[in-house]
Amino acid sequence: MFELDKRLVDASHALGELPLSIVLLSRDANFPWCILVPKRDQVSEIHHLNHSDQLQLLKESQLLCSAMMEVFKPDKLNIAALGNVVKQLHIHHVARFTKDLAWPGAIWGALPAQQYQHDDLVSRIAMIRKVLAESGMTWAH
Amino acid sequence: MFELDKRLVDASHALGELPLSIVLLSRDANFPWCILVPKRDQVSEIHHLNHSDQLQLLKESQLLCSAMMEVFKPDKLNIAALGNVVKQLHIHHVARFTKDLAWPGAIWGALPAQQYQHDDLVSRIAMIRKVLAESGMTWAH
Repeated sequence: MFELDKRLVDASHALGELPLSIVLLSRDANFPWCILVPKRDQVSEIHHLNHSDQLQLLKESQLLCSAMMEVFKPDKLNIAALGNVVKQLHIHHVARFTKDLAWPGAIWGALPAQQYQHDDLVSRIAMIRKVLAESGMTWAH
Repeated sequence: MFELDKRLVDASHALGELPLSIVLLSRDANFPWCILVPKRDQVSEIHHLNHSDQLQLLKESQLLCSAMMEVFKPDKLNIAALGNVVKQLHIHHVARFTKDLAWPGAIWGALPAQQYQHDDLVSRIAMIRKVLAESGMTWAH
C-alpha cells in the first residue's frame, strides 16, 4: 500500500492530490518548490511506472508547471527526479529567478533551508491550491 | 531552424539522433551522463513542446533510461531539466552509484569535470550506441 515517505512528510507541506500524485510544497522558503509524488508503491524511477501512469504524470507535471508559471512568474523552471536519498519517486518542480540565491546553480545542497514566515506560507499555499483547483483536473485537498 | 547550442556542443560528444532528440554524452567522465536535446527551435521548457513531442520525449527518455540501466547498472538514475545557463531545452540523464564522488548529492557544481581516457570514451560511446541501435526506435549516428 502506498504511504508517503516520512522524510517527504517532514520536509514539506501537503497541498493536495491530483489523480496520480500527491502535491507537496517544500518547507524551504528559499525557492517556490513543489514536489509531485505518484501514489504508487515501490516505485523509484519514472520508467518503473506503467505507461498510463507515465502519461498521467506528464499531464500533472505540465499542470503544475503552468500553475507555478502563473503564480510565481519565474525566469525558469527546474524539474528533476533525483531520489538518491529518498528512494520513493518524487519529482521536484522549482521556480527559479535570476535573482535567487543559488542562481544559476542547481538548488540541491546549495543553501541551508530557510523557514517560511507564517503569512507567506499561508498565502503561497492558498495561491497554488486556487490555480490547481481551477485547472479542470480532479483535485482534492 | 533548430541548431544545437554551442555550449552543449562543447561540453559533450554526439552519440546520435532519435526521432525527436539529439543524444549527447557529457565530456565529464565523473559520471555516465547522457543528455537529450529535442530538435525544436526556441523551446526552453518541457511544457513548451506540443503534446505529441512531449509524448515522444517521454518515450525517448524511457528508452535512454533503459539503455543506461543496461549498460551501466547504476544504483539510481537522476533525470533533470534545469537550463538555467543554457536555455535550449535539454534533459540530463545521469547514472548514479552509491560509490560515486558526489553521492548522494546532486552532480551539478559538485566536482570539477574530469576528462575521459580515450579508450574509456570510445568503449562507452560504442556500448550506448549499440543498445540504442538495437532498441527498435529509429536511430541514426
